[in-house]
Amino acid sequence: MNTASIGPVHPGPNTVTAHRPATLARISDGFWALRRRVNAEASIPEGPQRLEEAGNLANLRAAADPDGSAAPVFSGDFQFQDSDVYKWLEAACWQLADEPTPALAADVEQIVALVSAAQREDGYLQTYYQLGEREPWTELGWGHELYCAGHLMQAAAAHYRATGGRRLLDVALRLADHIESVFGPGKRVDAVCGHPEVETALVELYRTTGEQRYLDLARYFLDRRGHGTLTSGADRGHDRDPGPEYWQDHLPIREAGEMVGHSVRQLYLLAGAADLAAESDDDELRQALVRLWQDMVSNKTYLTGGVGSRHDWESFGDAHELPADRAYAETCAAIASVQFSWRMALLTGEARYSDLIERTLFNGFLSGVGMDGRTWLYVNPLHLRATPHERPGDQTAHRTPWFRCACCPPNAMRLLASLPHYFASVSGTGLHLHQYATGKYGGDGFTVHVATEYPWRGTVTVTVDDAPAEQRTLSLRLPAWCVRHTLTVNGTLADGSAQDGWLRVTGMFQRGDSIRLDLGLMPRLTRPNPRVDAVRGCVAIERGPLVYCLEQSDQPGGLNPDDVVLDPAAPLAVQERPDLLGGVTTVIASGRRLPSDEPGQWPYTPHEAEPRPLPETVHLAAVPYYAWANRGLGAMRVWIPAAEVG
Amino acid sequence: MNTASIGPVHPGPNTVTAHRPATLARISDGFWALRRRVNAEASIPEGPQRLEEAGNLANLRAAADPDGSAAPVFSGDFQFQDSDVYKWLEAACWQLADEPTPALAADVEQIVALVSAAQREDGYLQTYYQLGEREPWTELGWGHELYCAGHLMQAAAAHYRATGGRRLLDVALRLADHIESVFGPGKRVDAVCGHPEVETALVELYRTTGEQRYLDLARYFLDRRGHGTLTSGADRGHDRDPGPEYWQDHLPIREAGEMVGHSVRQLYLLAGAADLAAESDDDELRQALVRLWQDMVSNKTYLTGGVGSRHDWESFGDAHELPADRAYAETCAAIASVQFSWRMALLTGEARYSDLIERTLFNGFLSGVGMDGRTWLYVNPLHLRATPHERPGDQTAHRTPWFRCACCPPNAMRLLASLPHYFASVSGTGLHLHQYATGKYGGDGFTVHVATEYPWRGTVTVTVDDAPAEQRTLSLRLPAWCVRHTLTVNGTLADGSAQDGWLRVTGMFQRGDSIRLDLGLMPRLTRPNPRVDAVRGCVAIERGPLVYCLEQSDQPGGLNPDDVVLDPAAPLAVQERPDLLGGVTTVIASGRRLPSDEPGQWPYTPHEAEPRPLPETVHLAAVPYYAWANRGLGAMRVWIPAAEVG
Repeated sequence: MNTASIGPVHPGPNTVTAHRPATLARISDGFWALRRRVNAEASIPEGPQRLEEAGNLANLRAAADPDGSAAPVFSGDFQFQDSDVYKWLEAACWQLADEPTPALAADVEQIVALVSAAQREDGYLQTYYQLGEREPWTELGWGHELYCAGHLMQAAAAHYRATGGRRLLDVALRLADHIESVFGPGKRVDAVCGHPEVETALVELYRTTGEQRYLDLARYFLDRRGHGTLTSGADRGHDRDPGPEYWQDHLPIREAGEMVGHSVRQLYLLAGAADLAAESDDDELRQALVRLWQDMVSNKTYLTGGVGSRHDWESFGDAHELPADRAYAETCAAIASVQFSWRMALLTGEARYSDLIERTLFNGFLSGVGMDGRTWLYVNPLHLRATPHERPGDQTAHRTPWFRCACCPPNAMRLLASLPHYFASVSGTGLHLHQYATGKYGGDGFTVHVATEYPWRGTVTVTVDDAPAEQRTLSLRLPAWCVRHTLTVNGTLADGSAQDGWLRVTGMFQRGDSIRLDLGLMPRLTRPNPRVDAVRGCVAIERGPLVYCLEQSDQPGGLNPDDVVLDPAAPLAVQERPDLLGGVTTVIASGRRLPSDEPGQWPYTPHEAEPRPLPETVHLAAVPYYAWANRGLGAMRVWIPAAEVG
Repeated sequence: MNTASIGPVHPGPNTVTAHRPATLARISDGFWALRRRVNAEASIPEGPQRLEEAGNLANLRAAADPDGSAAPVFSGDFQFQDSDVYKWLEAACWQLADEPTPALAADVEQIVALVSAAQREDGYLQTYYQLGEREPWTELGWGHELYCAGHLMQAAAAHYRATGGRRLLDVALRLADHIESVFGPGKRVDAVCGHPEVETALVELYRTTGEQRYLDLARYFLDRRGHGTLTSGADRGHDRDPGPEYWQDHLPIREAGEMVGHSVRQLYLLAGAADLAAESDDDELRQALVRLWQDMVSNKTYLTGGVGSRHDWESFGDAHELPADRAYAETCAAIASVQFSWRMALLTGEARYSDLIERTLFNGFLSGVGMDGRTWLYVNPLHLRATPHERPGDQTAHRTPWFRCACCPPNAMRLLASLPHYFASVSGTGLHLHQYATGKYGGDGFTVHVATEYPWRGTVTVTVDDAPAEQRTLSLRLPAWCVRHTLTVNGTLADGSAQDGWLRVTGMFQRGDSIRLDLGLMPRLTRPNPRVDAVRGCVAIERGPLVYCLEQSDQPGGLNPDDVVLDPAAPLAVQERPDLLGGVTTVIASGRRLPSDEPGQWPYTPHEAEPRPLPETVHLAAVPYYAWANRGLGAMRVWIPAAEVG
């Protein structure tokens, strides 16, 4: 297994993919290094305290000692509280793999011991049912038992890969064996979990142990799904039935053509399906995955890479239903999208999957993480009005230290902690750089280091550290957003034509060889497909991989971004602002101010009526979307009406 | 009380309003007569059977005989099931007032007897609590006890006014007295009902009986509201807290400036507040009501008059948040809007309230009622895509015979049955015609008959039947949508200038005097205020008071309305189609077909890129929005992208 990276996806000897994760992938400086530093120094270290405050650790202690002095009362509002602990453990383990520290290692081992102690003799583990009145495996729809088991398995794989320790892995294996004793052919065949997750986790458990039966169980769960087995039933007195699409039980994946239902459920399921396709070289499944990914990209993805258009049931909407204001675009869905796309990138070797990963990481994912690493967004809208009426709870645009449903924060931590894993891959022909960050990448004896100030500046310099004495190809992803670039090899302009999104440099590389990619970073205006109703007549500002937005606090006189139109014909200017939001480049556009409306005025007018003149020109300052909502709550827009539409 | 109409709002001797409902208001032919005929012959007669199937009547029988042979088990999913019965009773009574039939009278008396028998000795009446395990008045948030009481009171007033019988009124009075024994100064002062309704009903009970204490209790409930008293608590295990705006407990009305929260709750409350303002000549309250109504009209109303932008909590959205596709625009909210606006029309005498009533009746309300009178829509979106993914339940665009939450059907029945009540008013100066339908209208000795084929044709002929031997003013509302009209009096062109929306003809009227109003009905294109993000760059087709839509089934080759843009410069044509949808006038527009997208294509492109040419011209046939979804489920659009925006 020494050809695989230390990361979440760890192909085994039978895995059939075009690419494998690079075995060397370390980010040492620049944009992502800064975000990962905050993750390492603020987010992850504070995790145990948050889990203590929210009662997650108390649940484990109570389950470990049900006859003890403390009353075995479950804390928290959801059946899946344990999964927050597992996701934090996974994050902490990837962090330990990157940069071991005794304090974090001690925290991890303490919580691992707690998890181990909470496990029942027969291997079952979920504190909600251990501490509650209901029996395990009786509420498959809402129970989240297999979901939690999946997160435990992923944490166990991370713990084992990062530390070599087997303690958490043994817990996961006992639980997996217990699950296998309950479900499968000849056993319970009537149900699957209401929240996919165990499928991808079981494949990873198979890859970790080589035990075929975990792969078989993953395939069993995948194939069982899509037959309308799940019902809301009387689980927890849920009085609304979300329907079979919600929990991905409406159609077998092989027959599905559209991304529907709960977006995280849909994407976790597809990540698991991609793992299974890789393990079984299953072309029918692979084709279904490509079809679904394409549906997502063309019809159901926000400019930020966010997905999930509806607050209702946290779901995908109809094709082209992409409201900016009521975008749900859950942080977890962005993470799940990265996980699915990465598996597709490995499976196919195609660059387009990493185009979407880049967009999602820099925008719809990172917006969920406060600049301080201590506050979070659950939903990531592309438009917030000045006086939002939001229902109380997690689904607001207020950055919040922790959520009642705290799925997103530890999920973001584990993605940031394992981020380099998603940046490079190897194949028979050489090394592929999917994302650009200063650091070291390589595998199969071909290693490079990268220096760049991306995404603020467009130069990426790749220097070869080691290369085998054979012809190799270094492939650099040419971002789909890029309209002008140059490629030089050892100072000489090279052929810069990309094939399928890859710039390929082939040759006998030697230490010190230098490949330089210059990506044009002129700010640009983007318009939507005419079928995207919600943002028709608008433009968005982008620069490189970054989507920009107008925040009220940056506008002259606190001008409300809802009170302006943008003049697309006027030039855009950029300004480096090291003082702002941890150091950003802003984009300045030209616009005009809308007049106020009369109170009581009917807002629909004859088409023939002359539009009101808009004489007042204003300068509009846009900041990167990922950094929004870090300076209090004010109006924000990604999509800005174009002056000619008004 | 002989100056008041037979209708829902029945001002008493102390009521201070600019207008009072006309005492004579009968619709005899034309558009609304047809819709009311269906209501009388299909909807209302089938009510008892629906209430039987849904268990509502069984609940009353079980409550009437809790120790009998049938087990006292509550049927239905909601605490407010009884209110469906009361709303049906109210509808049936208005229908009896209009056109008494023995069969309907017998149905009414049978159900009245059932309601009477179900009442507890102490006056309490709500079968959910009588048959359940929980105690009355313990779940004010979700319990709906005062809400149901309010609907009972309104039904009782209708029964009394229509039949002169006191049996249901006595039930309502016993319940009101019971409520008075529980709530009020010196008694329970800690809570209000989670769903406003009892306020307006208590005022009407006061008007019916002259008992001041019912008015006082209404004022007490109104003043208690807005202090954050209500909490979700543990009522029925609701695991989501809707927040104080949801149940109108966030701010006292006098301090409120914005329509928020659950739209029906907000509007029922304001209807009650308008009644109280009329009974107490309360200028501060009146000003608040005007402010809120204006906020609704300018910022939160769909072109159809529908309100309620969010499926989430069935609520108003932010200002200008008016998505066409995810519009909730509940049928009940349209009804409640009419109720509120009518009270404001009476209070102020201003025509603009009836402008909104007209728009709402012809569009956002009537769309909720199937052409057959046997199927209903709960939600009334302005856009449905070809392959909608809707969660199961009531909130879909599928016409449905009855709902799990069946608030809308009997609510629509009672509005249609009492519709003439909203069409005319009297004041010291004469008669005001708010809406146009063939029939007779009048009061205070001044009566007219109206002949018109409105809304299909624009001529309204008013002929005087009786007039006092004094100067009077006949006021005709000049619809706000109308850009060209003429007014003739006894064949002579008269001054057609409107003041505040009223065309006033003043003089000594004599029997046979004829006033003719010709309203131009050229079809027109309407565009939205630039702040309405969801439909920017689109136009809508309107003609007279009717909003039009493109339904897929009317387009050439079943063309999906999402695949076209409309050419605003091309002329619109009209076509009378007696064969279609019970007889409609269609509007034909010119548009162009959008090309298909490539699978997997990223839907956001550089602004500078040339738009794709749209060579293919198509004719688009629009039908009135109220008639949509009567021919199966296909794509539908009210707002159509303008070709120049694309």
